[in-house]
Amino acid sequence: MSEPDPFAQTKIAARAWFETLRDRIHAGLEQLEDEAPGDLYPGEPGRFERKSWERPEGGGGVMGMLRGRLFEKAGVHVSTVHGRFPDDYAKNVPGAADDPRFFATGISLIVHPLNPHVPTVHMNTRFIATTQAWFGGGADLTPVLDRQRDQSFPDAVDFHAAFKAACDTHDPAYHPRFKAWCDEYFFLPHRNEPRGIGGIFYDHLHSGDREADFAFTRDVGEAFLSVYPEIVRRRMTTPWTEADRLEQRVRRGRYVEFNLLYDRGTTFGLKTGGNVEAILSSMPPDVAWP
Amino acid sequence: MSEPDPFAQTKIAARAWFETLRDRIHAGLEQLEDEAPGDLYPGEPGRFERKSWERPEGGGGVMGMLRGRLFEKAGVHVSTVHGRFPDDYAKNVPGAADDPRFFATGISLIVHPLNPHVPTVHMNTRFIATTQAWFGGGADLTPVLDRQRDQSFPDAVDFHAAFKAACDTHDPAYHPRFKAWCDEYFFLPHRNEPRGIGGIFYDHLHSGDREADFAFTRDVGEAFLSVYPEIVRRRMTTPWTEADRLEQRVRRGRYVEFNLLYDRGTTFGLKTGGNVEAILSSMPPDVAWP
Repeated sequence: MSEPDPFAQTKIAARAWFETLRDRIHAGLEQLEDEAPGDLYPGEPGRFERKSWERPEGGGGVMGMLRGRLFEKAGVHVSTVHGRFPDDYAKNVPGAADDPRFFATGISLIVHPLNPHVPTVHMNTRFIATTQAWFGGGADLTPVLDRQRDQSFPDAVDFHAAFKAACDTHDPAYHPRFKAWCDEYFFLPHRNEPRGIGGIFYDHLHSGDREADFAFTRDVGEAFLSVYPEIVRRRMTTPWTEADRLEQRVRRGRYVEFNLLYDRGTTFGLKTGGNVEAILSSMPPDVAWP
Repeated sequence: MSEPDPFAQTKIAARAWFETLRDRIHAGLEQLEDEAPGDLYPGEPGRFERKSWERPEGGGGVMGMLRGRLFEKAGVHVSTVHGRFPDDYAKNVPGAADDPRFFATGISLIVHPLNPHVPTVHMNTRFIATTQAWFGGGADLTPVLDRQRDQSFPDAVDFHAAFKAACDTHDPAYHPRFKAWCDEYFFLPHRNEPRGIGGIFYDHLHSGDREADFAFTRDVGEAFLSVYPEIVRRRMTTPWTEADRLEQRVRRGRYVEFNLLYDRGTTFGLKTGGNVEAILSSMPPDVAWP
């Protein structure tokens, strides 16, 4: 007889939460597609299209892609996979050195709005179990116009406030730590510039109270839902110029550079046979290196 | 008294050759800018703009960029640098393990034509000296339309024939070996697809006859000059559709993926403080991940 799985309940509950959150985010972004003013955004409101995929080693996911009039390209995916880490990788994963089996469930999100005044956003939360278990994730905002990439700009202020509130409910030490971690991670050394205005980033969160860590991870999702649609509504009615659009397309190039040169999830996934379509669904639709 | 430098003459001659070749390529591409038919390519013919840069550790280069009507973006650069390899890197470089000093001179070229019927091309040749000395380089063609990415397509046939002729003058073993090396190097494992239709790639060429190796490297440059302008002339009068242009922009995305994920020169340069502007000048001007 094998040992009972101490994480069985959280695996089920976390997956269910990520799927529920995905449904709510799909609905929220589709609602914004409906609200977008027709003079700036001609055509029909976009809708998410879902596509299931399976991982030969175990599990799979559902990609959700929207190609709309307000959101030029948005991906909101859930995946739940299990298997064994490659030996080289296992030794660097907590709890996997002697037993490389793992379970991972999570939601990942990237939104590339058409309008350069509407910032790009990324969010991702996950639950991982080896012989240990933890939550991780974060959310960060990437305004594409230089004049919006200032910590005093209202979008940056409100984005940080939303995640600070989510953090502070759980532990006053979280926000300073997770905000600094985000700034450190989403940075392009070769350009000596940050990817965006930051947000929060956390990993290996296992405080000893798994229910509390899960509740925090849910609050990160709630914070996203409370703040990003509000920022979109505030900016989507501003018309843009060709110069704005070019600035956006160049800034998106930096996003590509970050993802392909530095992002651990992207490079690990691509080099170890992950689902290429899902991994690269984050790439911006229209990019310039003039 | 220090030892006389056994490679001093080749260093001077190789640099002079790369600069001469650069001048001839600039002139050749500008000539094509003049010849491009005005109905397909409105506006003034483009001209190369040169910009010098210096490397704090020693040497520098001249970037040459053309943003034209036929060539949407073309970079043809020469650099001649010297210094010391970082310790970690030196141990993997022939002749540098005990003495990390190096000298490198070379030409690098990337052309992104506007018209999807005109293939993208890359070429790069160089002379490197540590306590040893060698030549390296190559050239490869990247047609962006699927229907041109076949080894039987005339452009592929002619491109390979030109470099085979350059190789065969020197050693009949060169072309099979350097063509296979090119196919192996310019491959995207995560897409399971080649970058283009190939060409040649060689490195650490030190046959024992340095003059012969230098002559071969010159012939690689001559082969480029004989074949690429001919291919451009053949294709530049074909009008293109919006679908062709989208296919080109998507294919350029693969080029970006290759350069940022796999290209050793790009990733090494970016992660070790190289000239970012020069390294990333190879990025395509207008790219799509739809």
